[in-house]
Amino acid sequence: MGRWEPGARERLVVAAVDLFTEQGYDATTVAQIAERAGVTKSTFFRHFPDKRELLVAGQETLSRLLAEGIAEAPAGVSPLEAVAAGLERASGAMGPVNRELGPRLKAAVAASAELQERDALKSVGLAAAMTAALVERGVPGPTAAVAGELGVLAFKRGFAQWSEGDRSAQDDFAGYALAALDELRAASAALG
Amino acid sequence: MGRWEPGARERLVVAAVDLFTEQGYDATTVAQIAERAGVTKSTFFRHFPDKRELLVAGQETLSRLLAEGIAEAPAGVSPLEAVAAGLERASGAMGPVNRELGPRLKAAVAASAELQERDALKSVGLAAAMTAALVERGVPGPTAAVAGELGVLAFKRGFAQWSEGDRSAQDDFAGYALAALDELRAASAALG
Repeated sequence: MGRWEPGARERLVVAAVDLFTEQGYDATTVAQIAERAGVTKSTFFRHFPDKRELLVAGQETLSRLLAEGIAEAPAGVSPLEAVAAGLERASGAMGPVNRELGPRLKAAVAASAELQERDALKSVGLAAAMTAALVERGVPGPTAAVAGELGVLAFKRGFAQWSEGDRSAQDDFAGYALAALDELRAASAALG
Repeated sequence: MGRWEPGARERLVVAAVDLFTEQGYDATTVAQIAERAGVTKSTFFRHFPDKRELLVAGQETLSRLLAEGIAEAPAGVSPLEAVAAGLERASGAMGPVNRELGPRLKAAVAASAELQERDALKSVGLAAAMTAALVERGVPGPTAAVAGELGVLAFKRGFAQWSEGDRSAQDDFAGYALAALDELRAASAALG
């Protein structure tokens, strides 16, 4: 088996989520994940440091895309319009595999305290990336912090609706995330 | 040494934070924490399941107080006024020891990936507790979710200012948390 294996990373994620769903996170080993994906253990470790990181594999990419989209939004747009640009950019990393794995991933996280912690840190990291990118644009700290949290809520709510809805529709993640952001924007007006 | 030891829980927390600061979280054992606090290891385990939980010891109490304050806020107040009532209620659990430990706790968390994850889950848990209490009052889901996130931001920003500011002032946590919530409310108006 050569060093370069097309799709190995994606196959590892699918295999892991399947095994976590079938037999639980704690009972699943790296060796089992590699075997199910049809790769060697050393291929696993070229892609991921351990089985836990595998489930938040996209975090760095997402953080980078969200920050880039915010940074490159036109001058003068509102903080939430900049967040919307970040979500649109991040949508590029959310493909059919992400969508299909969503519900199983959710079940695996719900069943494991360790994965819940890692998942919580992912949310905090995404909020921090958006907040920092907004501050960089000159948005005051408290406004940037609120906008960053709304961005994460929109991402999570949009992802839930996208991955649990009609997957045959082939519509992309961006529409769901932007609709969720709009809903949260309207909800904010009712805070009092 | 009797089974009932007044202040053992608080002494354990202080001892742990001191040791984490002096020698790092990973290098600190339960035995060392117990010795520094002047209690036995079994006393430690009567209070905490492990050294990590010790640092988020107040989470359940805080969640309960936040939810109670929100539930008992007068009928007809806005979602953010209900969150303010929750923060005031939770302030009862934030005493001088919490205030004094704040900066060292922050340093310990910053230095340990494991503690960062646990701390992130604590934030998610507090937000969930507030959101659920607001939904229980009849606040629509998206508004409750935003208000819950603002409550956590207010808690964290208020705590940072309270514990890093002039500790001789003897003013209580509530004032800082409510000021932070007011600031976030004003910031929300500038979201666009």
